[in-house]
Amino acid sequence: MPDRRIDVIAFDADDTLWHNERSYRDARARFRVLLAEAGVALSDDELEQFVNQREVQNIGYYGYGVSSFILSLIETAVELSDGRIDGRAIAEVIAISKQMLTEDVELFEGAREALAALAPHYPLMLVTKGDLLHQQSKLERSGLQGFFRYVEVVSHKTCNVYRGILARHAVDPDRFLMVGNSLRSDVVPVIELGGRAVHVPAALSWAHEHAELPADDRGRCFEIATLLALPGLVATIEMGA
Amino acid sequence: MPDRRIDVIAFDADDTLWHNERSYRDARARFRVLLAEAGVALSDDELEQFVNQREVQNIGYYGYGVSSFILSLIETAVELSDGRIDGRAIAEVIAISKQMLTEDVELFEGAREALAALAPHYPLMLVTKGDLLHQQSKLERSGLQGFFRYVEVVSHKTCNVYRGILARHAVDPDRFLMVGNSLRSDVVPVIELGGRAVHVPAALSWAHEHAELPADDRGRCFEIATLLALPGLVATIEMGA
Repeated sequence: MPDRRIDVIAFDADDTLWHNERSYRDARARFRVLLAEAGVALSDDELEQFVNQREVQNIGYYGYGVSSFILSLIETAVELSDGRIDGRAIAEVIAISKQMLTEDVELFEGAREALAALAPHYPLMLVTKGDLLHQQSKLERSGLQGFFRYVEVVSHKTCNVYRGILARHAVDPDRFLMVGNSLRSDVVPVIELGGRAVHVPAALSWAHEHAELPADDRGRCFEIATLLALPGLVATIEMGA
Repeated sequence: MPDRRIDVIAFDADDTLWHNERSYRDARARFRVLLAEAGVALSDDELEQFVNQREVQNIGYYGYGVSSFILSLIETAVELSDGRIDGRAIAEVIAISKQMLTEDVELFEGAREALAALAPHYPLMLVTKGDLLHQQSKLERSGLQGFFRYVEVVSHKTCNVYRGILARHAVDPDRFLMVGNSLRSDVVPVIELGGRAVHVPAALSWAHEHAELPADDRGRCFEIATLLALPGLVATIEMGA
């Protein structure tokens, strides 16, 4: 359609379409109780900082996702207990991961509605990072799979990764719209590439994902409160407003 | 090229192009020593069987790859020690995983030569399962990346997964050749789909990967001892022999 401005609309998954960080927050809370029982008492903030640091260090080894998180918790438990933590506590940490990996996928308000409104008019793409298997499993459980023509699970969301995806699908960056909750992963690299991006802030976001909103002198960066507003925003973009 | 029989040649990576199972075998040996020090003495076979069982159970949670393997080792250690294993031993298990994830990638005999001979004449595809990040990192470290036009990291290698890949790349199964060490993952599903497959048995293969060689009444299944023989085999297939 030559009079359109957008050819493909892409969505982040975790904390954009469905809740994710909440599950990590709950896991950290259970982990804190577990550590306290093992004689390691820390404040929420101290523990948060410790675990975050360990997670960021481990991305290079284990990537993003639940396995990486759980291995980080285990390392944290060993380190903070000076190696005194026992196998029973470790088994409980592993049990947390299995619960995270199988729990229900809860959609954000407007997620299904926005996809249902847009899918008949645009090819939709999911661009998500994390465990390949876990992301596919969540997509299946979400009931949203049928809306997506393309699914891309990537190990990082850098400018180069987006460039590769667009090249592979022969999409002009100028005609690409990315929707997500992370400025760092969903917005900044896409704007840098010459695309458009819609920021949908989540109530909870992982500390590692923070970034500055790009200077928006080309009107290519948008923000909406919930996905309910997305179809209207897309219509506005198409009308050249 | 209308007079050709093959459009795309695809390769498995682990234990086809580069050593992988050897690294797991060494890790299991270190793990056995570690367990013995913690007072759990098992024969090689008993431990192998126990770990394998745990790994297969965990595929559904953590998929294939080093994180999944290490979480399986940790669970095994907890279980076999009745929870008495301590944090120091767990930290050593985690250290094994970090070594596995960063050690040198060692190519099999003929891997580079076969790719170098075929890449100028066919688009080559890598089809591998495992951690997305780790597979990409190994491909980079292997020095083989430049030979591949396409890289597909998948969570399982079933008939349906191959069907999806071929559809996405618009490749007729009849004109697809898959090369790999695993009958179960690389040969059987591709033959079932109507493609051709070359089995390159590895000295070491993961127990989970065994399968029966398909009944080959269509001359679509081949076996070679090393990848050095692959360019010649491809030439023979093209000549319709």
